[in-house]
Amino acid sequence: MSIHQLFCPRGVAVVGSTAQGKIGYELIRQIVDGGFSQVYAVNPKAQGAFGVSGFRALSEIEGSVDLVVVASPAATVPGVLEEAGKAGVAAAVVITAGFSEVGNREGEAEIKRVANHYGIRLVGPNCAGVINTHHKLFASLETRPPAGQVAFISQSGAMGGAVLSWAEEQGLGFSKFLSYGNRADLDEIELLPFLAQDRETEVVALYIESVEDGRAFLDAVREFTRHKPLVVIKSGRSQAGQRATLSHTGSMAGSDEVYDAALRDSGALRVNTVEEMFDLCKGLVSLPPLVETFHGRDIACNVSTRSAAADPSRLKPRIAIVTNSGGPGVMAADRAEELGMTVCEPGPKLKEKLAQALPPYCSMRNPFDLTVEGTEAGYRETLCAVLEEYDAAVAIDVAPPYLDSVALARGVCDAAAKSGKPIAASFMAGRVVAEGIAYLKAHGLPNYPVAERAVTVLARMAEYGAFRSTDRTWPELPTERKRLPGCSQMLEPEAVQWLCENGIPTLPFRSARSISDAVDGCREIGYPVAMKVVSPDILHKTEWGGVKLDIGDDDQAAEAFTAIEELLSVRARQHGTPPSPPDFRGVVVYPMVKEAQELLLGVSSDPQFGPVVVVGLGGVSTQVLRDISLRVAPVDHLQAEAMIRELRAYPILTGFRGERPRDLEALANVLVTLSRLPFAYPEVSEIDLNPVFLLTRGLVVGDVRVIRKEQTKP
Amino acid sequence: MSIHQLFCPRGVAVVGSTAQGKIGYELIRQIVDGGFSQVYAVNPKAQGAFGVSGFRALSEIEGSVDLVVVASPAATVPGVLEEAGKAGVAAAVVITAGFSEVGNREGEAEIKRVANHYGIRLVGPNCAGVINTHHKLFASLETRPPAGQVAFISQSGAMGGAVLSWAEEQGLGFSKFLSYGNRADLDEIELLPFLAQDRETEVVALYIESVEDGRAFLDAVREFTRHKPLVVIKSGRSQAGQRATLSHTGSMAGSDEVYDAALRDSGALRVNTVEEMFDLCKGLVSLPPLVETFHGRDIACNVSTRSAAADPSRLKPRIAIVTNSGGPGVMAADRAEELGMTVCEPGPKLKEKLAQALPPYCSMRNPFDLTVEGTEAGYRETLCAVLEEYDAAVAIDVAPPYLDSVALARGVCDAAAKSGKPIAASFMAGRVVAEGIAYLKAHGLPNYPVAERAVTVLARMAEYGAFRSTDRTWPELPTERKRLPGCSQMLEPEAVQWLCENGIPTLPFRSARSISDAVDGCREIGYPVAMKVVSPDILHKTEWGGVKLDIGDDDQAAEAFTAIEELLSVRARQHGTPPSPPDFRGVVVYPMVKEAQELLLGVSSDPQFGPVVVVGLGGVSTQVLRDISLRVAPVDHLQAEAMIRELRAYPILTGFRGERPRDLEALANVLVTLSRLPFAYPEVSEIDLNPVFLLTRGLVVGDVRVIRKEQTKP
Repeated sequence: MSIHQLFCPRGVAVVGSTAQGKIGYELIRQIVDGGFSQVYAVNPKAQGAFGVSGFRALSEIEGSVDLVVVASPAATVPGVLEEAGKAGVAAAVVITAGFSEVGNREGEAEIKRVANHYGIRLVGPNCAGVINTHHKLFASLETRPPAGQVAFISQSGAMGGAVLSWAEEQGLGFSKFLSYGNRADLDEIELLPFLAQDRETEVVALYIESVEDGRAFLDAVREFTRHKPLVVIKSGRSQAGQRATLSHTGSMAGSDEVYDAALRDSGALRVNTVEEMFDLCKGLVSLPPLVETFHGRDIACNVSTRSAAADPSRLKPRIAIVTNSGGPGVMAADRAEELGMTVCEPGPKLKEKLAQALPPYCSMRNPFDLTVEGTEAGYRETLCAVLEEYDAAVAIDVAPPYLDSVALARGVCDAAAKSGKPIAASFMAGRVVAEGIAYLKAHGLPNYPVAERAVTVLARMAEYGAFRSTDRTWPELPTERKRLPGCSQMLEPEAVQWLCENGIPTLPFRSARSISDAVDGCREIGYPVAMKVVSPDILHKTEWGGVKLDIGDDDQAAEAFTAIEELLSVRARQHGTPPSPPDFRGVVVYPMVKEAQELLLGVSSDPQFGPVVVVGLGGVSTQVLRDISLRVAPVDHLQAEAMIRELRAYPILTGFRGERPRDLEALANVLVTLSRLPFAYPEVSEIDLNPVFLLTRGLVVGDVRVIRKEQTKP
Repeated sequence: MSIHQLFCPRGVAVVGSTAQGKIGYELIRQIVDGGFSQVYAVNPKAQGAFGVSGFRALSEIEGSVDLVVVASPAATVPGVLEEAGKAGVAAAVVITAGFSEVGNREGEAEIKRVANHYGIRLVGPNCAGVINTHHKLFASLETRPPAGQVAFISQSGAMGGAVLSWAEEQGLGFSKFLSYGNRADLDEIELLPFLAQDRETEVVALYIESVEDGRAFLDAVREFTRHKPLVVIKSGRSQAGQRATLSHTGSMAGSDEVYDAALRDSGALRVNTVEEMFDLCKGLVSLPPLVETFHGRDIACNVSTRSAAADPSRLKPRIAIVTNSGGPGVMAADRAEELGMTVCEPGPKLKEKLAQALPPYCSMRNPFDLTVEGTEAGYRETLCAVLEEYDAAVAIDVAPPYLDSVALARGVCDAAAKSGKPIAASFMAGRVVAEGIAYLKAHGLPNYPVAERAVTVLARMAEYGAFRSTDRTWPELPTERKRLPGCSQMLEPEAVQWLCENGIPTLPFRSARSISDAVDGCREIGYPVAMKVVSPDILHKTEWGGVKLDIGDDDQAAEAFTAIEELLSVRARQHGTPPSPPDFRGVVVYPMVKEAQELLLGVSSDPQFGPVVVVGLGGVSTQVLRDISLRVAPVDHLQAEAMIRELRAYPILTGFRGERPRDLEALANVLVTLSRLPFAYPEVSEIDLNPVFLLTRGLVVGDVRVIRKEQTKP
């Protein structure tokens, strides 16, 4: 209710000096100019402005005030909120800076406390304010944007202002705007559910630099994207960017890879620039959803659709490019393929239809090139025909000054209305086609200055379409809580045992602390075997020379044991650390696994999102090429499958070059199980399964390392 | 000389109907409106237009005509050229379509023949004409662009027109424009040397869909980029794009990977959209060159510069981001790092200097955030100070409506003038900063709507700066011509021998056609060995089961030989192809190579560029992740080194995770030698060296396959 009152207050009081040029003065000007009448000025001088009456205190105002906008000095803000609370105000927007962003954490805690006490919802402090165009409320110093269907939430006031200033030129309207600055109280986590229900909002655009509680953020995103598209800019992808974000907002930024995977997996559409945000929002608010229509397709695309049928998340939308110039059509096709769309040729029926409708010099192979002779009717008929077979189209007009761009725009708009499928336009270039672009805009079709941008928008819309069509559910968090065995670092045999008990297949093994035990162990396992050192002091066994592979007989087994034992004392002398030799707890013996694909699986802990599960192919692929796939844990089977498919090296697992396909079902199952362990065992900080041997049937873990949290919270 | 007359004719005759609305009529309007006065109309009716006199024939004109612009029907063009030749005309622009693009190759050959005969340089046919803004010559139907320093050559007339229409809004001026359509005669190969010398041209932008002679094209590019920057759009990167290009221009498009490597290696700056082309040209014509200044750096960046010193091509330009808002600064930093620039923190001296100059709330860690309080002086002093240490800067102004953007622009422009280093601006957003942007433009500073685009431009300028600083030379083509041994497909032993004679190290081997010979051969080589089938009928030995590895003793050797022999007859029966068993020529035996990094090297033949040399890591890395590096052959040692460094898996070769570094010097030498073989042996179509064993000292080739051209031209 109080978020509603924030955006749709009956009355607004601006608290702060209304002397000319002061923030209070400018705020009142904005609110009055915007057309909102129930506004009051509150300041010690009871000074009004722009016809608005001034009061000494909120309590003196007779009308109902649901919202106060605070621009008075930082030290006065707790008192203002106290007064507002007593006056029954529902929401406060604190424009005033000088709180946690400059180290004044006590001041911020104080205003939060007062607001909480009175049940006031707080926006800010240090923020750029609130706008609700449909309520004519402009409680912000920023440029008043045109009304529209996009709600924009910005952590940064300046970025918010820049976007609002640009809105009219970009042809995008906003329903609501809110910048929350230091987020003492309200942020996207509560705004998203509100906006999901807001009738005036079709799309939300979000600019963030950090989040406070990664899990709560993800829950809000996942719930929101079930209803409406969410476009997100998350800045701070680079090292320099994260350094700046840290100094800028004071909150810890999580790894960008985790943000990226979490947002994508949760159905949010991440973009990297404000321009991309405008482009995508324009497409989302003005075009029908882009849904990949798998059924009723013509024969020409059967190959790709058949493989897609086995894997619905990999459905590639089919895009038709209709143009009157070859070059831009080709460039649009280039971009579409790069973005994973299908730019296939038309099927035979469609080809025949087009051959009858179009002059012979037109190219009908997609891009459909009507040539410079392309007419209004040509665009209309071609687009209508192709959209019976394709999922979306880009209409390109590269107009010489003598062509009537309005006529072509009419053809395009007619086809859009008739087909009910998305058509994004690219009328080039500039003033020559200004009238055509105006026609498109008036008829609700987005135009992009280059066709590559139109294609990019359609690709992202298809991504959201595919997400919505799967009707995603999310795994519940495990509720049972257990203790890890022991109380310190688990040794390898202990960890393997633990893993096995938790349902993850491991290799049989034998522990041994003497030569003769080691030889016996090797025999029991059966040659060839692998032997590894066991010591709480050694994390990187291979680098220590503590791993011997392919031991073929008793002699080699004895030799390996002795070598490991000796190496440890030599190493200890060489390095001097630890000053005494490492605590040698013998060796562990495993069978050698042949013809397996080695993987590494892991769970780590992200500062923002907590447990994260990772899979990669190990070695070069992971460590040099960074071909890994990750998700915020826990994951369900669908997510695990998607993780596996995302690996660039995925074809290797499915039977590359005549090799036998690996057991991906088993791999997905293990990923699901692994991803739940840090919840069942809250002491877990990291788990590394490396190597994992993936076989044509099943998999087994070859080694495991479990790291406890430094301060265990049982 | 005649290209000069094409762009700077004394007089121009327009041949074709001047009836209202006809092309000849519009051409004369354009030429007259553009301010060129020595123009004549030629048509059967001797009809003039727009005050221009009409003549029945070129011979009737008394003034000097250097250029004819032909818009008369296709069938009349040979006659027009004949007449022009007799009248001493130097150049002809044939706007008329209806030649090779619609299959009329004879007509095109005919006009080419006539033009050649009279020494007339021909532009077109089927082209959009010629413009020289500095000569006030607008012999084109396209929009007249503002004058400037960019020459634009476009294969496509429509794309050319779109760019010209957009030029004024984009704030870019052109010196010359030429669209060559079907390129019966002139194209970029002769225009580039002309423009390299053209005083009015500082940058050339080139739009191509295909080239006719890849080698000649590359020679022209390499010569041009020694003088001036070249920005290239090459469309048709995707399958669909190439399909369209084929149907569109009728010429064979080479592999896009080869184009890409060839352009990059030759110093051209490839971009993918018209927008990127505008952005980059604006930066190149208005900013000083971006040169990485390696010397005299402060201590803070020493780590990156020290490794750069060992590898000059990897120098990363250091970019400073100066902003008055955190968010856009962070986003610019994100993009800069993604593009391989260094966004390092300032050194201690600079930090101290800034601490004295700036208020304490400013962030001085790069991005340098002056906050919304940033002033004209703040921008001026910060930029001047940072540019003593950094190579370039981006100046971001995210202006609320109440800030004076002109003052900030003044600060930025002053710093640009004083520092002499490139500063790209991003004043956001739109109308709010329109006056600031106008000030920047008036002072020659490019502005970009989002800072990411400014950063991208600087990164590309740095790429060109690095290219220019190396003063590249290019390897001469080998002149000696030799014959391959034999006259059919070389068998493995033969091919290995040939390779060895040509200076590429190979493994010792033994051939054997019987069990006893095979066992003897294995002994001579020394166990363990590898044994492979020899047969002209078997290309993929491994898939045929014709390769046995790790043969450890005489018994295994005999067994392997028998197995190979038997398998062949079994396979032949199973598949029925070839109907008789494969032609079995025995086996070849090699030593097993341990602890080598396996690579594959190759030479193949590109339809546009001829021999191409390739290196990759083999297996997954090459075949699934497509981590390969290629160049148009031959390459010199510098290029070979660059190829190796380009591999994403490069760190593996240099001593990853404690492994010993590989002999990259030997690898580069072999690449150089290999890349020259197809020139010395013109019969060679392909050479595959796979595997190549790269050792810590030296390398050896493990297998080689040489494919002859189908029609050998000795």
